[in-house]
Amino acid sequence: MTTQAQLGVAVIGIGKMGADHVRRIDRVISGARVAAVADTDRERAESAAAGIAGCTAHTDPDAAMGAPGVDAVLIASPGPAHEETLLAALDRDLPVLCEKPLTPDTAGALRVLEAERKLGHRRVQVGFMRRYDAEYRQLARLLRDRELGRPLLLHCRHRNLSVHPYFTNEMMISDSVSHEFDAARWLLGEEIAAVRVLRPAPSSLAREGLSDPQLVIFETEGGVLVDVEIFLNTGFGYQVQAEAVCERGTARIGDEHALVTSADGRWGGRIAPDYIERFAAAYDREVQEWADAARRGEVTGPGVWDGYAAVAACEAGIEAQRTGRRVAVEMIERPKYPER
Amino acid sequence: MTTQAQLGVAVIGIGKMGADHVRRIDRVISGARVAAVADTDRERAESAAAGIAGCTAHTDPDAAMGAPGVDAVLIASPGPAHEETLLAALDRDLPVLCEKPLTPDTAGALRVLEAERKLGHRRVQVGFMRRYDAEYRQLARLLRDRELGRPLLLHCRHRNLSVHPYFTNEMMISDSVSHEFDAARWLLGEEIAAVRVLRPAPSSLAREGLSDPQLVIFETEGGVLVDVEIFLNTGFGYQVQAEAVCERGTARIGDEHALVTSADGRWGGRIAPDYIERFAAAYDREVQEWADAARRGEVTGPGVWDGYAAVAACEAGIEAQRTGRRVAVEMIERPKYPER
Amino acid sequence: MTTQAQLGVAVIGIGKMGADHVRRIDRVISGARVAAVADTDRERAESAAAGIAGCTAHTDPDAAMGAPGVDAVLIASPGPAHEETLLAALDRDLPVLCEKPLTPDTAGALRVLEAERKLGHRRVQVGFMRRYDAEYRQLARLLRDRELGRPLLLHCRHRNLSVHPYFTNEMMISDSVSHEFDAARWLLGEEIAAVRVLRPAPSSLAREGLSDPQLVIFETEGGVLVDVEIFLNTGFGYQVQAEAVCERGTARIGDEHALVTSADGRWGGRIAPDYIERFAAAYDREVQEWADAARRGEVTGPGVWDGYAAVAACEAGIEAQRTGRRVAVEMIERPKYPER
Amino acid sequence: MTTQAQLGVAVIGIGKMGADHVRRIDRVISGARVAAVADTDRERAESAAAGIAGCTAHTDPDAAMGAPGVDAVLIASPGPAHEETLLAALDRDLPVLCEKPLTPDTAGALRVLEAERKLGHRRVQVGFMRRYDAEYRQLARLLRDRELGRPLLLHCRHRNLSVHPYFTNEMMISDSVSHEFDAARWLLGEEIAAVRVLRPAPSSLAREGLSDPQLVIFETEGGVLVDVEIFLNTGFGYQVQAEAVCERGTARIGDEHALVTSADGRWGGRIAPDYIERFAAAYDREVQEWADAARRGEVTGPGVWDGYAAVAACEAGIEAQRTGRRVAVEMIERPKYPER
Repeated sequence: MTTQAQLGVAVIGIGKMGADHVRRIDRVISGARVAAVADTDRERAESAAAGIAGCTAHTDPDAAMGAPGVDAVLIASPGPAHEETLLAALDRDLPVLCEKPLTPDTAGALRVLEAERKLGHRRVQVGFMRRYDAEYRQLARLLRDRELGRPLLLHCRHRNLSVHPYFTNEMMISDSVSHEFDAARWLLGEEIAAVRVLRPAPSSLAREGLSDPQLVIFETEGGVLVDVEIFLNTGFGYQVQAEAVCERGTARIGDEHALVTSADGRWGGRIAPDYIERFAAAYDREVQEWADAARRGEVTGPGVWDGYAAVAACEAGIEAQRTGRRVAVEMIERPKYPER
Repeated sequence: MTTQAQLGVAVIGIGKMGADHVRRIDRVISGARVAAVADTDRERAESAAAGIAGCTAHTDPDAAMGAPGVDAVLIASPGPAHEETLLAALDRDLPVLCEKPLTPDTAGALRVLEAERKLGHRRVQVGFMRRYDAEYRQLARLLRDRELGRPLLLHCRHRNLSVHPYFTNEMMISDSVSHEFDAARWLLGEEIAAVRVLRPAPSSLAREGLSDPQLVIFETEGGVLVDVEIFLNTGFGYQVQAEAVCERGTARIGDEHALVTSADGRWGGRIAPDYIERFAAAYDREVQEWADAARRGEVTGPGVWDGYAAVAACEAGIEAQRTGRRVAVEMIERPKYPER
Repeated sequence: MTTQAQLGVAVIGIGKMGADHVRRIDRVISGARVAAVADTDRERAESAAAGIAGCTAHTDPDAAMGAPGVDAVLIASPGPAHEETLLAALDRDLPVLCEKPLTPDTAGALRVLEAERKLGHRRVQVGFMRRYDAEYRQLARLLRDRELGRPLLLHCRHRNLSVHPYFTNEMMISDSVSHEFDAARWLLGEEIAAVRVLRPAPSSLAREGLSDPQLVIFETEGGVLVDVEIFLNTGFGYQVQAEAVCERGTARIGDEHALVTSADGRWGGRIAPDYIERFAAAYDREVQEWADAARRGEVTGPGVWDGYAAVAACEAGIEAQRTGRRVAVEMIERPKYPER
Repeated sequence: MTTQAQLGVAVIGIGKMGADHVRRIDRVISGARVAAVADTDRERAESAAAGIAGCTAHTDPDAAMGAPGVDAVLIASPGPAHEETLLAALDRDLPVLCEKPLTPDTAGALRVLEAERKLGHRRVQVGFMRRYDAEYRQLARLLRDRELGRPLLLHCRHRNLSVHPYFTNEMMISDSVSHEFDAARWLLGEEIAAVRVLRPAPSSLAREGLSDPQLVIFETEGGVLVDVEIFLNTGFGYQVQAEAVCERGTARIGDEHALVTSADGRWGGRIAPDYIERFAAAYDREVQEWADAARRGEVTGPGVWDGYAAVAACEAGIEAQRTGRRVAVEMIERPKYPER
């Protein structure tokens, strides 16, 4: 067999998502290879590197980034570890795909933003994979082209089969609704201005103390109202749906489909159990497009500013959740620097 | 042909709904006939009575109620005229089906409630026809039987093709959302505790000054959150949808269906233009069940208390709309009197 | 209560369908009453008549037709008994609604046709209730108006939960596919020219000897091909679906809808168990329109000719089933006589 | 950037499909590269090779197969050219992915089969991409696992927006229904025993002489009946649907879904215009899995036997179309040789 130049990626953090990304780069997408992996758990890192030709294993992210053949970095470590790795990658001027959240708080996000601004061009993409889902893209195009006029309302459903017992009310905002914050910004082309959180009497099937479900309502700067049902312990599966209400019509995505059966007195189909299955194609496309752009020296996906904006909305959302009040989202002015 | 005892109905108010009810009693349902009609416009009354054997035409509601062969009253006149006719009908101890709203305000509703309480038995049914829609009934049964556990959230969509230019922000609550106030009370079996109204930037296709659409959010006494999108100038048709989110699953009604075509690069179907078409079968069933019960001397549908509760929620909703605040619904304690 | 002239109906045959029609005339539709009932089982007849004012019970159909107050006849007795009752009703010049089949064979159907022709006007309507189903009517209108151009193919599904053990292969044609024979003639506006029957290896869940399911394929005079899946022991419910393929698009009816739930890893809804539930509204409309027309001295629904045509197609279908060959449908020329 | 061993593919034939495969190997899938291209039109070959590092352009397929770095062959030339290229590739013992049809007739297919048998292991995969479609795979799994019992009937729809004027009746079988021949064999796990073709009066929008649509009905050896609507000039889009009717239920794939809009009095969505869009993900997966297997020295997809069986069914189908009769499919006994 012949050989070809490929983007060598260092994957940092080999948990559920990181392992899936290693598999994806190794076996699914084109033009990239896993050149190094890092995990604080050495055994996990070595096991991930084992079957991949030329892939080295590390416990230190920086060592992985400096390993032979590394051209780019994919960060899938826990959120609190992101900032240090991001800053180190920017220091090396490497293209980065960083799983969300960019950082746990706006202070960290601003430091990353400043580092990239100093570098003078975009290097970091944040892993908001919904922007790569086929249905979301259709909805985005319809809204951008004003096919049904100006958007007025956006109804969102975000439902999980179940969550780990350590999941907190704050994480409902920062880990779950953060996807809707980014999706809404992207679909509507506007920043989020303020957030409210309303809580019904919680499900008795949720852990004691977890207020599940919740209704998160936010407004964009242009006055679009977005309502998000976040429900973590549905017991039936993973559903992500959105309906945009525009001046001349509505558009809805996320309906279940595929194989439809009639049996036992019922018609219908299966619900995906998790985001790995529901967004499998979106993750493939996300990493493919990121690698393609990285090979050209570009970043085309959501960047540090988008990561910062989502974190800022989360901070307002968590305060709104705590106080029961409408909380304005506070953001700095967007810095300008070339896209490269 | 032979003859049979039938409920003689006086129809008061021959507008769009009244005329439709005259047609329904005359030609669709069983066991009832139109015995008299009344409208302030004499010509309209006479025209309605013209084709119906034994039906007399009046301009005065009381005269119609006293006309020969009248056993029951259907009130379809404008809301402000309801109270006087209701009190007169109760005075005659006649069974009544009164289109909503029961009265324009709670003060009037309480006077009607007091009159019926004094009579000592229920005589008045309020025209909340959704309780007679096949899909709503399926949802009500599922919720009552706790098939999917306790309800937590109820998402509602209420969309019109367009409205008359005189439609006001207040009417969005009192004429439109009043249906959801009643439907939620009935589906959930709980009173409404408080109402919020949120307004996005309005559609440019709505009349200047009309804040269309709006998001009306209310809580029940038991803590269920209900969100209602009310959108009057969609330009595409009449849609009423509801999705109950319960502890172990969700249940949705109101999806479009029927004839599905593939043509011109698109698949899909038609949307009903108005409630007359969408709820045709529900109106038929409502009037049939009302007449059947009236012949047995009973009232089985939503009564004065339900009419009062909806008006009380509307008053809170209108204040919430005006102030932007959460407004508690204030209601008297429910009087007890036999059902007859 | 006042009284009003109503069509007095004699219901002949109080089995499952007959009893449902008694209930329908008594309690659902407008302008008609049950004046007499007849069943060979006297107890059954008396029990049906018991709760209905002025309704007499008989064992002899002719006595029922001659009972006081009888203006019209609804025949729901077994097929072999139809001819005698039809001829007697025509002799009395009474309007008739006769459940299908008109008669078990074309010889009998031709005698009824001749009797009505001699009478000189239409009096008999045959109970093809699909013509009164809302979705079928939408499809009929679309095809009649050539909205999608000329029809080319019609795909039909006709599925039952299960059938009685005495159900035979011949009855699959005469009792089940007869509905599609009429529906196709009505939808397409053409007579059926020839029939084929293809049989897959039968379901092991069907009774020994019953070839279930079967594929019945017929051509109209104008060359439209109609394929019908007839499947009696699906085990899951009653489904009737049709898809017309036209020159510029397709149109489909009969999709399941109504309450859609998400629970236990699946989305979907319930399937109706039988035709009584699936076509409840169609039966109501059929009997209402028949009674309305009868009061005007008219017949507006499918008549003797339609009943004869369906029986002729069934005879060809049964021969095709027996021989495995394409069998042409043989019919007399249509006699002309006024509609009255 | 680093380098990695990749499967070097020679793409033979750079028409619509060939060009799409070049793009796919170059930019979408992992572990493969385009090492050479061949087309009788030199300019086309050179243009395809232009942007790809290390890719050579040829007019002679054999030269392309012998070019430096070629490890495997993808044949996308017109059907009549397949045999020669297949035999040459087998002579070189190269893994092949050959677009369907394997060859235009069974005589050629048998020669390819014999050549591979002599080689002693499987080398050739045929491009039946539906086996790689997510929904088809779900249906195949359900049928294989007998989730709803034994299959009895399979209803298929195969509709195109339009076709080139040179499309003939025979091509409706060999180019279009050949997909259903393979899909049915794969889904049901049985060979096809006999074929019938029924023709309705043709659409006036099809070219004079083309009998469009047609109903192709075939039986498997085990007695499953398969009916295929093949309709080439629908004017509305590309639709491929299948419904399996089993002993305990039905399962349907291919419903339209994705973005659903409500606007202009209608709800619904878009229909894909062609197979390139409808089966984009299936093509990606097909070529990825083929390349992965080829790197391991294996063939896991449909092989020469499957290509031969489809051609044999097509020959019977074309005779059935010509004669109007049921025509048995004649096939040799399946030769046995190791899978490698």
